[in-house]
Amino acid sequence: MQGKFIVFEGSDGSGKTTVISKLIQKFKKENIDIISLREPGGTAISEKIREILLNVDNDKLSYKAECLLFAASRAQLVDEVIKPKLKENKLILCDRFILSSLLYQGIGRNLGINKVRDINEFATGGLKPDLTIFLDIDAKTSLKRKRANFVSDRLEMEEDSFHWAIYEGYKKLANLYKDQICTIDATRELDMVVDDCYKKIKEYIGD
Amino acid sequence: MQGKFIVFEGSDGSGKTTVISKLIQKFKKENIDIISLREPGGTAISEKIREILLNVDNDKLSYKAECLLFAASRAQLVDEVIKPKLKENKLILCDRFILSSLLYQGIGRNLGINKVRDINEFATGGLKPDLTIFLDIDAKTSLKRKRANFVSDRLEMEEDSFHWAIYEGYKKLANLYKDQICTIDATRELDMVVDDCYKKIKEYIGD
Repeated sequence: MQGKFIVFEGSDGSGKTTVISKLIQKFKKENIDIISLREPGGTAISEKIREILLNVDNDKLSYKAECLLFAASRAQLVDEVIKPKLKENKLILCDRFILSSLLYQGIGRNLGINKVRDINEFATGGLKPDLTIFLDIDAKTSLKRKRANFVSDRLEMEEDSFHWAIYEGYKKLANLYKDQICTIDATRELDMVVDDCYKKIKEYIGD
Repeated sequence: MQGKFIVFEGSDGSGKTTVISKLIQKFKKENIDIISLREPGGTAISEKIREILLNVDNDKLSYKAECLLFAASRAQLVDEVIKPKLKENKLILCDRFILSSLLYQGIGRNLGINKVRDINEFATGGLKPDLTIFLDIDAKTSLKRKRANFVSDRLEMEEDSFHWAIYEGYKKLANLYKDQICTIDATRELDMVVDDCYKKIKEYIGD
């Protein structure tokens, strides 16, 4: 198998982390050489950047600095992990990538999608996911899920209107780029969601 | 007095920090409302970014991530400190600004001056120094000074050729932008260097 880079996108609480961990188990049973990554993070340096980004004490973080920190964490992840692992022909499942920045910083923070895209093209050297899976769940349900389970981080604490804008942005972009983004209904039972993702990836990697 | 933003540039070991601290003393004696800042740093968040940038353990830091972290630290400094302090009509002396990134990341890391400028224009929202003072001292002398006095940080540990390229870049840009960059011979006695900077700033602020 050739290396493939599969990205999971969706609102906070859409189930990305759980779905990815279930998929890893399934693929490992088939001896497929797979790794999972999360953003921001995935390298020692990127995890330090993550700490700055998500720490609720950093409430003075400016929107532009936030955008640049996400891009820095991503640049490090691409150079240190994603590119080398693709060369080793691994299947990579990544929790968020550029699309998250276009939505959270471009739309949510109103920095503009084009500006945020330019910065991230620089950060990644133009590396694109082979496939993006959008876990589609409306903001109301995803926030309810998220807030019932965890202590919120700095971004999750944003107002509901912020999360609704992100969700609407996901829907719009997923519709615009149907050829690159596969939408999966994530309001259903976990097993059904995992199964659909699994089938889609299998189909994609031609296995 | 109107707020003014004066930036000091030059190689590591060119004496920027010492010169700025002497100038602060002089201006404070005259009851001029002055503050000094350093880059990367100058805010709680920017100092956390500084720690990532200068820590010698982070030897895997990619050049693009480095560039984006400097820009993130700068964005935070501009929004949280520089803009508000200029509104309060302070005289700001800042140890490094965008020019350092054009040289260290654009030339030193070979990321390209135009790309690095674009990212920093985004970071600062186009804010420019009112005056830039370039402390001119050749790389050989500045490195000798620096290495005699301190434990080196991650950037200072770069090879001599890196520092020479930076110095040549400074000379070239200072020559190209004579109207914005004032070059001061920093190989002389400290008092003479401080005195020249002091006169230049006084002349500039029209005091």
